[in-house]
Amino acid sequence: MLSTVRAGTRRGISGLGNHIGRATRRSSVGGQSQFRSSSSEAVAPAVHFSAAPDTVPIPEKPQRITISEIKERRARAGRLVAPTAAPSDADMFKGSTTGKPKAKRWDHHLTHESTLRAPCKLKQAARHLKQPGIISLGGGLPCPEYFPISSLSLHIPIPPNFSESDTLSGGGGETVTIGKYDAASTNQPAAEYDLSIALNYGQATGSAQLTRFVTEHVELALGAPPYADWGVCLTPGSTAALEQTLRMLCDGVGRRDTLLTEEFAFSTALETAAPLGVGVVGVPMDGEGILPREMERILAEWKPEERGGRRRPHVLYTVPSGQNPTGATQGVERRREVYEVARRWDVIIMEDEPYYYLQMGQPGEQQKASRGVEEFLEGLIPSYLSMDVDGRVVRMDSFSKVVVPGSRLGWITASAQLVERFVRHAEVANQGPSGFSQVILHKLLDERWGHEGYLRWLMHLSEEYTRRRDVMVAACSEFLPKEVVSWNPPRAGMFHWLKVRHELHPDATSKSILEIEEEIFNRCIAKGVLVARGAWFRADQDKPPSGLYFRTTFAAATPDNMREAIRRLGEAIRESFHL
Amino acid sequence: MLSTVRAGTRRGISGLGNHIGRATRRSSVGGQSQFRSSSSEAVAPAVHFSAAPDTVPIPEKPQRITISEIKERRARAGRLVAPTAAPSDADMFKGSTTGKPKAKRWDHHLTHESTLRAPCKLKQAARHLKQPGIISLGGGLPCPEYFPISSLSLHIPIPPNFSESDTLSGGGGETVTIGKYDAASTNQPAAEYDLSIALNYGQATGSAQLTRFVTEHVELALGAPPYADWGVCLTPGSTAALEQTLRMLCDGVGRRDTLLTEEFAFSTALETAAPLGVGVVGVPMDGEGILPREMERILAEWKPEERGGRRRPHVLYTVPSGQNPTGATQGVERRREVYEVARRWDVIIMEDEPYYYLQMGQPGEQQKASRGVEEFLEGLIPSYLSMDVDGRVVRMDSFSKVVVPGSRLGWITASAQLVERFVRHAEVANQGPSGFSQVILHKLLDERWGHEGYLRWLMHLSEEYTRRRDVMVAACSEFLPKEVVSWNPPRAGMFHWLKVRHELHPDATSKSILEIEEEIFNRCIAKGVLVARGAWFRADQDKPPSGLYFRTTFAAATPDNMREAIRRLGEAIRESFHL
Repeated sequence: MLSTVRAGTRRGISGLGNHIGRATRRSSVGGQSQFRSSSSEAVAPAVHFSAAPDTVPIPEKPQRITISEIKERRARAGRLVAPTAAPSDADMFKGSTTGKPKAKRWDHHLTHESTLRAPCKLKQAARHLKQPGIISLGGGLPCPEYFPISSLSLHIPIPPNFSESDTLSGGGGETVTIGKYDAASTNQPAAEYDLSIALNYGQATGSAQLTRFVTEHVELALGAPPYADWGVCLTPGSTAALEQTLRMLCDGVGRRDTLLTEEFAFSTALETAAPLGVGVVGVPMDGEGILPREMERILAEWKPEERGGRRRPHVLYTVPSGQNPTGATQGVERRREVYEVARRWDVIIMEDEPYYYLQMGQPGEQQKASRGVEEFLEGLIPSYLSMDVDGRVVRMDSFSKVVVPGSRLGWITASAQLVERFVRHAEVANQGPSGFSQVILHKLLDERWGHEGYLRWLMHLSEEYTRRRDVMVAACSEFLPKEVVSWNPPRAGMFHWLKVRHELHPDATSKSILEIEEEIFNRCIAKGVLVARGAWFRADQDKPPSGLYFRTTFAAATPDNMREAIRRLGEAIRESFHL
Repeated sequence: MLSTVRAGTRRGISGLGNHIGRATRRSSVGGQSQFRSSSSEAVAPAVHFSAAPDTVPIPEKPQRITISEIKERRARAGRLVAPTAAPSDADMFKGSTTGKPKAKRWDHHLTHESTLRAPCKLKQAARHLKQPGIISLGGGLPCPEYFPISSLSLHIPIPPNFSESDTLSGGGGETVTIGKYDAASTNQPAAEYDLSIALNYGQATGSAQLTRFVTEHVELALGAPPYADWGVCLTPGSTAALEQTLRMLCDGVGRRDTLLTEEFAFSTALETAAPLGVGVVGVPMDGEGILPREMERILAEWKPEERGGRRRPHVLYTVPSGQNPTGATQGVERRREVYEVARRWDVIIMEDEPYYYLQMGQPGEQQKASRGVEEFLEGLIPSYLSMDVDGRVVRMDSFSKVVVPGSRLGWITASAQLVERFVRHAEVANQGPSGFSQVILHKLLDERWGHEGYLRWLMHLSEEYTRRRDVMVAACSEFLPKEVVSWNPPRAGMFHWLKVRHELHPDATSKSILEIEEEIFNRCIAKGVLVARGAWFRADQDKPPSGLYFRTTFAAATPDNMREAIRRLGEAIRESFHL
């Protein structure tokens, strides 16, 4: 039942590996869950808030496992045998969950669309393929004989020497090769993945091979959630994960949902929600992101009749670390408070964390030169996942900012119930991420670097971005007029958010904030610097803006160009303000 | 405006190539198009059918260009300079459209959701980057310095020797390398694409480099549509394209659309439509697929009040070549007739053609050994695209069946208006296909094989599948009881459809067709062969089935296993029928 083995192909693998064999299956929610008619909820939104709040305490700190525990676990499990389109899930690879409670049920959060999803008939039939000797004339999977690529090689750095120039010159780094039939080759007993598997059709969850890596990575770097039945699903990037999760949780028609998010929010998230008819309400922020008391206030004071009939929000979308666009990072206490508000009001948290590993100290703060990976992990602000006693967090991870955006590869971590609904959608939305991306990242991260090498890479990246952040903050101090521009040095990510005191502008009484913002933006363009306008990120596009902001990034330009660009921005602001 | 050039990065390309420079832009439909309230349409569906049918004749044959024309065109255009995230579209690469009419407007076909889509604010801002010397602090694109892969090599066959064993042995084929900065390297003046571009963020349309290849391929292999403003958009495979197109054209709520499709249809298409609330109606078929007179009848006799208030269908989803599951291939006359019905009733045609190039002769028919690519193309049944005088066809192509499924890469070809709406969705649904997939397929198909090599590969594949089809048809003749099983040898694709005369079954009066089908299916499993049940593919799941069918595939099993599998199937049927 667990492994799709196609008899009669050249690979001819018919055994089931330890991992695949010892998996426990989650029961599918597909058949049972009921779509709850929601027209009544729109006017009487308090139904599922009336239960007494649970009192299970949030764990003090993340329960991380160690790299040596992962090594022991893999040694015990033996070689992973997962041939073409083998089903897999996190349960096959994660540590013991004995004694942990199960996640709550979230049926009342699911959209009509999500509830209607049924498993793919052809993929279900694959369960018959576990029968020894069966020949499949069932699924239309091409024979790998017809894949016109017989091997793929990558030149990559060897940790801890991540210098691009060393690797490019050919003197450093190593070349590693992925063959077509490595996993079946007697010459390569350790090989568990190859082109014949990765380049054929797979499961919408992604491959077992990469699922193992990300499951272990979650337990190692974030700590397993404090409930038992969590799972993962690989995605074609967090853009896809965001849209799929929204369609799973937010109905634009029928019950007419509204999404809570930061007052200034990732513009793509806003552009994803709008065509679905999903409303968006921005939660006021400070330097640490959304304010729990403001989130509480919005929920407590929500009146559908004042909100065009929309029911009280039940989903929060947040970027806790290095938020886009404000660069704000929620500290651990802030996250706990937000989580408690979410519990009280039965809110699902969509935790979008592309910049999580790009956490930084204060500018000028010296990083210990000989930091170990344990120290690095201990220094990370805990993920909502690690506090998630209810199973109400859907965390989105992505390799875009920390490996390459072009991989279009990431994953979600959430309760098994939500992952199952998500997978049903992935089967018809995209069939999971590219096999090229999966097999290349598996070779790099799992086979060559391993967890330790990957963590060292993340440390390296966070140091690089810290250096860039420091250049930008120093340039701002040097070139921006402090009497009208202020900022908090970002503690994570790629973005620096500048607040401009519009009320001091000579035209403050005759021009709107948007007009002043546009005037400064155009001056910037004329002077040769492109910045992002704060207005592009306003969650409530209909409300007048509360302030004048610009977003800059320290991700892309060289240090010299960054300084020059900030100098031009400073000139533009000074001229506009007649300073 | 046309090229996103990020200043300050190591690549530092600031020029615009000929191609990018000579593009003409389509105007966006975003701002103008109006969502037409459709509740009225549900009860008065004839509004846009009342106009006199157009009389523009369907062209006699496809207007294909030649490989030498493509070469001349490229030589005239010069080197393609398309750096990171450079916008592109088919207009930059296609031949002259002088004298051709424009496509009709399809605003009335768009869903509410699709109509509401607005362009991505951050991507719009990139237009400022054309300004010389501008430094971008705008978009959060990582610096390619932090991409930990400095080169990628592939071992691939050299046309026309496509033998896997030759290429695998290392004696045949060639190894080609994609560097990180090839396109900027003075050592490689011909290089137009590299890892620094492909692995960064790109446009949701896919890269300019691969857009050029597929645009030319459409004109070369299918013939350009007979209207001027057609376009293409790369997709992460046709699974994604299908869901995106459905969401663009079919409203499950509001106007409550119904999709026309084959009586037996690709089950994933049915599973995509159902959760959206989109109805499905199957059009009766013969050995050549959907019957135009039946399609006409359904449309002419449609009464919303007899269809639960659903309005008359305005979209047809069809797999014209090697249809899944029936293997039926529509001949040219059939396609013309279907197109004329679509014109009369204002129906958009979603043409899903994964098996298009796997067209075959009759079993036993000898293929000329020295066929040229021109002959191969002349022998292909024309695509709906080549007849599409109105611009009402959305064709979906995929590399899954003809290169590798794991590429998760394909493209759509359609009128610029529909492509523009599709791209707006792709921006938030997936941001286009994987960069690894794009750069690898570009290296293989464009740089190494070229159009001629790729066509030779397609010829090779169609010959291989013909050989496999012949093995299967011969096995069926040998092992299946002809008194109860019949079939048409498929003329394309991977699937063989078997009709079983259930009325001759000993339990025909006491058991339903579905019960007999299940009994035979279970006997098959017990005997060690997995086939697909006809019932899984019924478009109208609520209606009683009209016959008893099984689908087999000749794609995957070895010839010996195929024969053995059909022998087992024959035994199962004989036993069930007491023969």
